[in-house]
Amino acid sequence: MKSKLSINGERLLSRLKELGQIGVDEEGKLTRLAASDTNKEGRDAVVAWMKDADLKIVVDRIGNISGIWSSLENESQEPLMVGSHIDTVINAGIYDGCYGVIGGIEVIKTLKEEGYTPSRPIVVGVFTNEEGVRYAPDMMGSLVYAGGLSLDEALATVGTDGTILGEELKRIGYEGTVEPGFLKPHAFIELHIEQGPILDSIKTPIGAVENLQGISWQRVTIDGVANHAGTTPTAMRKDAGLAAAKVITFLRDRCNNSNATTVATVGCIELEPNAINVIPSRATFTVDLRNPNEDRLKEEESALDEYLKQLAETDGVKISTERLVRFEPVIFDENIVKLVENAAKERGLESKRMTSGAGQDAQMLACICPTAMIFVPSVDGISHNPKEFTPGDDLVAGANVLLDVVSKLTETK
Amino acid sequence: MKSKLSINGERLLSRLKELGQIGVDEEGKLTRLAASDTNKEGRDAVVAWMKDADLKIVVDRIGNISGIWSSLENESQEPLMVGSHIDTVINAGIYDGCYGVIGGIEVIKTLKEEGYTPSRPIVVGVFTNEEGVRYAPDMMGSLVYAGGLSLDEALATVGTDGTILGEELKRIGYEGTVEPGFLKPHAFIELHIEQGPILDSIKTPIGAVENLQGISWQRVTIDGVANHAGTTPTAMRKDAGLAAAKVITFLRDRCNNSNATTVATVGCIELEPNAINVIPSRATFTVDLRNPNEDRLKEEESALDEYLKQLAETDGVKISTERLVRFEPVIFDENIVKLVENAAKERGLESKRMTSGAGQDAQMLACICPTAMIFVPSVDGISHNPKEFTPGDDLVAGANVLLDVVSKLTETK
Repeated sequence: MKSKLSINGERLLSRLKELGQIGVDEEGKLTRLAASDTNKEGRDAVVAWMKDADLKIVVDRIGNISGIWSSLENESQEPLMVGSHIDTVINAGIYDGCYGVIGGIEVIKTLKEEGYTPSRPIVVGVFTNEEGVRYAPDMMGSLVYAGGLSLDEALATVGTDGTILGEELKRIGYEGTVEPGFLKPHAFIELHIEQGPILDSIKTPIGAVENLQGISWQRVTIDGVANHAGTTPTAMRKDAGLAAAKVITFLRDRCNNSNATTVATVGCIELEPNAINVIPSRATFTVDLRNPNEDRLKEEESALDEYLKQLAETDGVKISTERLVRFEPVIFDENIVKLVENAAKERGLESKRMTSGAGQDAQMLACICPTAMIFVPSVDGISHNPKEFTPGDDLVAGANVLLDVVSKLTETK
Repeated sequence: MKSKLSINGERLLSRLKELGQIGVDEEGKLTRLAASDTNKEGRDAVVAWMKDADLKIVVDRIGNISGIWSSLENESQEPLMVGSHIDTVINAGIYDGCYGVIGGIEVIKTLKEEGYTPSRPIVVGVFTNEEGVRYAPDMMGSLVYAGGLSLDEALATVGTDGTILGEELKRIGYEGTVEPGFLKPHAFIELHIEQGPILDSIKTPIGAVENLQGISWQRVTIDGVANHAGTTPTAMRKDAGLAAAKVITFLRDRCNNSNATTVATVGCIELEPNAINVIPSRATFTVDLRNPNEDRLKEEESALDEYLKQLAETDGVKISTERLVRFEPVIFDENIVKLVENAAKERGLESKRMTSGAGQDAQMLACICPTAMIFVPSVDGISHNPKEFTPGDDLVAGANVLLDVVSKLTETK
């Protein structure tokens, strides 16, 4: 019977579209920053769908919404939690986050319609401020939920627009009264678009996400000596821009020799004085280093440190680094990952074990309960962009896999 | 007798200091942009010193000042011209240009005081807008003088402050009536600070400048694809910033293999979107390539073109280039260069044949008459900066070498 039970694809897709219309401005750009007016509208829509599924709505003090399906028989059991977020970046696509929330509601609605009796409560979580665009850090709601950031500190966060998160949550009517983390999940599963090109490029509909990359962000500053571009012989130059270029190519060489596990990006660079005929006296740039294995990530950081020391000697420059962000990699729960693989297989869907390259609410929940993620393809790997797209069939397939895994984890033994 | 005749070092240095005080603002910064009020003050001081040497003052229509020493006996001969410029960059040093002008006046004053009778007129030229900070292009006065730019076009130049050069010259009283180039020089010699570190580093007081580097400026634009720094595998990236870094290191490799004749500088770079966790979709940067040999400079340009084509293939990026500036190298007059070497030798001064890395008025005059330059050391190679410095002994030595060369070129056969 389980292989026949499927979610209502039409309802799933139409709700994704509906939510994707909320927060669209006059220019057609979708933006629902955390705790904004458009975010409130989106929350209201989600709460209405939760109520439609007869879920009990609980909002915690950081604004996370829980839609709870429990019964007298199972309410003593730890709940299975699914979910994601509905806040967006500026000029966003309609899938990132929303798919996991609407997919979760859809799974519960389907199970209810079929008269299914879960052995434990099932909860859809909607976490506040995953994107971190208006308030830093990102993944804030799930971070507070998992106890990684104090509630008071989070509520006092001042936004890029000068607002205070706590006040904004109150203003939009989503400052709850229960403590974040009031429900201790039995497990957490996040259904999400890949936001990368791998599944699309190998035409595989399901990603069984087994881990999440550790992230190391640094700012590197190289000080050389500004000099005349015409009159300074090559041997006498201390060119900060050249030294920066060497670091960029060094990092790519490391990635090429990492068996595709390390990725490195230099996304920002600034030269001083930034004049066409003056040798750069200073180069400031960022390094984004990621690897799903903490030891390997540390190796990459050490290799970079070592290279910078060597470069300071060979190029006669001074180099300093500043740590901006450091997240350890997250290993997801092997049992759940296997359930995802099995569910896909039973539905005749190819799946691939993979790493989440992006940060996710699931990485925070992984600190307090067994956790995994299900990915579906992002066409051309595009995300955080209006062109973000996943074909309807893939969206339905991913939600059906979630349905199966939820059924499996809540079946009566 | 010639080895005994020397310029008045005290007068030379005190006039350099005096001129260096004209245009100093409240913060102590020296700025005398072309045709500005402070430039007028500086011109007035120079004209006063020319009158003190009993020179005839002629201002041409582009504002170049000629201080002419001629006699009934020699006025039918082509004049020997010396000189340079007194306009400055913003927050300048006191030597660049001014040394050649004041040194030239000093040489004439010395010869006159000694009762010397030159076989041809001797002229000190002060060229308008060498630096090109307020009005483009640089070396404008000498360029117009040599016929490389029409007078009308030059006078109509709109400055960075919206002013028009011709109007500003009139306003400060330095719009002359004679045509630029009214004197056809027999030869031109420019005494100048090196503005580079070579003479200082080898403790050699005199540079016998035999040529001037050709300059090739381009803007390179590389278009890749912006993507998520975490979710995009290395093999699927089209990183415009990485491609730019490869170009920078390629250029340095070319310089290292050029037997120190090529210099290359990437002074400006800009990445888009310039976000820490986004692979750069676009890199825009400048390339400043110089070599004193036109064939070699063309080789370097071709090698870069070839490399960019190859890079577009290997890195999956699109590359376009825009030519910004192109000056052919200038070969100075071998006879005058030898006279400079000999003069130094006779005074017991070490000299070095060298290349001018910077653009100079002499490169324009070289189009119309035999030309060369005499360099003196710039401590640490610093120029266009208040820290620009040349020791007094070196300044005096350089002016004495000019004195000897001028004597040689104007002696009665």
